[in-house]
Amino acid sequence: MTTDTRILIALRGAGTGFVSGAELSQQLGITRAAIWARIEELRKLGYDIAASPHQGYRLISVPDVLHADDLLSLVQGNKVVGRDIRVFEETASTNDVVEKLARDRVKEGVVVFAESQSKGRGRLGRKWISPPRKGLWFSVLLRPNLRPQAATQLTVVAATALFRAIRDVTGVTPEIKWPNDILIKGRKVAGVLTELSAELDHINHLILGIGVDVNQTATEFPPELRKTATSLKAEAGRHIHRADLAAAILRELDRDYARITSLDFAKVADEWQQQCTTIGQRVAIQIGDRVIQGHAEALDDDGALLVRTQYGRLERVIGGDVTLQK
Amino acid sequence: MTTDTRILIALRGAGTGFVSGAELSQQLGITRAAIWARIEELRKLGYDIAASPHQGYRLISVPDVLHADDLLSLVQGNKVVGRDIRVFEETASTNDVVEKLARDRVKEGVVVFAESQSKGRGRLGRKWISPPRKGLWFSVLLRPNLRPQAATQLTVVAATALFRAIRDVTGVTPEIKWPNDILIKGRKVAGVLTELSAELDHINHLILGIGVDVNQTATEFPPELRKTATSLKAEAGRHIHRADLAAAILRELDRDYARITSLDFAKVADEWQQQCTTIGQRVAIQIGDRVIQGHAEALDDDGALLVRTQYGRLERVIGGDVTLQK
Repeated sequence: MTTDTRILIALRGAGTGFVSGAELSQQLGITRAAIWARIEELRKLGYDIAASPHQGYRLISVPDVLHADDLLSLVQGNKVVGRDIRVFEETASTNDVVEKLARDRVKEGVVVFAESQSKGRGRLGRKWISPPRKGLWFSVLLRPNLRPQAATQLTVVAATALFRAIRDVTGVTPEIKWPNDILIKGRKVAGVLTELSAELDHINHLILGIGVDVNQTATEFPPELRKTATSLKAEAGRHIHRADLAAAILRELDRDYARITSLDFAKVADEWQQQCTTIGQRVAIQIGDRVIQGHAEALDDDGALLVRTQYGRLERVIGGDVTLQK
Repeated sequence: MTTDTRILIALRGAGTGFVSGAELSQQLGITRAAIWARIEELRKLGYDIAASPHQGYRLISVPDVLHADDLLSLVQGNKVVGRDIRVFEETASTNDVVEKLARDRVKEGVVVFAESQSKGRGRLGRKWISPPRKGLWFSVLLRPNLRPQAATQLTVVAATALFRAIRDVTGVTPEIKWPNDILIKGRKVAGVLTELSAELDHINHLILGIGVDVNQTATEFPPELRKTATSLKAEAGRHIHRADLAAAILRELDRDYARITSLDFAKVADEWQQQCTTIGQRVAIQIGDRVIQGHAEALDDDGALLVRTQYGRLERVIGGDVTLQK
């Protein structure tokens, strides 16, 4: 853990109170001058930290930037997800950065954020617009001991984590659209892109790419997206602090990933099913050139959607473009 | 097509006869001096080419080396597999080389051979021993329009292609052991490692890694493998020309890949099923910590093995370590 991370943990731990320089110096095992130097650096990043000769330091406000040391301080209890966090000012695609890390044998749990992406992408190579500092664009490296067929479980986990974090941080309750979209009042606010590298019966690694539209105003979306996309700010009616939301998502992801690795996917699936607006609906699912129509009945053990077709057959659907039917 | 490739096609086309320098010069649109220079280079590589002032050039023998231009001349009719061939003297793993090419957006069909691999691998990260010039170690990049669940089809295609090429080139009829091994009299002579990069419902790219033990003598295998592994030379009782075998495999692969992309997997599966010694047997299949025991009944549409368990249930198995039971 870096000195900045430990200072921020101490300052946050004090709430609206002060932490004395002497106390910090003792806790961190460095001089008071060294602490002062770090405080100055944090101030330059936008952290508003009051300093009083008699009382010490107090955290007044934090800037809306993604700072790896601060994100680490917010997820210090996590077991796997976010034990290594890296922030880029701009990348082509955070999934591509994590793919390279995966091939360099970096441990699972590393999370890469970018303040903006020049080539962010969604499913099937579709473009994902990622303007600077307006949203969360990040990717998580996992190495689950699962068959490739069970990879949908991770998409379900990610969607459920997004659901809970958005609800808890913004107060707005979103919906999950199978398999990987989060909607508010029918408009998309977040999505998950799951990419995997596998042998036939074994996942080598899996990357969850997550995009959340946080602080765009309606007019900051391209005209063609305004009817189908929205932001948390637009729906909650206030600016959302991105680092808090990011930390909440990583905490929820970590909790549910632990459930999956302990083979307790059923619990996650139950919760997911309660929030999923796709279950119980008549749906049309486009998979390549083919369209499956029917009634979305449930999620199976692997996270696949079970659809009762018009011919009465139960089809197991792994992915595709879902449209709700009247 | 390179000049060397075209010269070798012309020489092979003449069989035991001569091709005149004038004819070659006209066909290739280069001077007779330039052709002479290329012939000299081919001779340096080990090609035995007779030159007669009156009759021209004649191919007497070819060396047992893998030469990209020559391999290209042998698979000139292929549509996808082998339209781009690259040969390395040594690599860590040909699958890794092809993985990098895939990420650089190289077109499907590229084949990378190595005369030896320092870190050749089999399924689940197991070591694959790849001594210099003794076998074929190569990888093929494909971008099939298939769901990840159907990737087993490609393993089946590769095993079937290996079966036919080995039978036709050596005269020895091997067996296919599901999903990815080729045996002769119960001992392994070749294997396929299928690795894929995918979204949940879409394969980005797939790499077939193929290893064939060709010209090792029994004592050239490590002692611990001698009971379970063999080479084509040991079984056929003669040296096998590796380039001929490589070309035969690539031709068969190309043919069956065309069948798959035209959605005619059933034909491949039928042929596979006839050669597969696993079907109709009592089997135990180890998948991670779990063992499935039962009767191997058939291959399904995706290439998965259907096993009737002792409890009467039909299990769909994607991969694993198969042991035949008495």
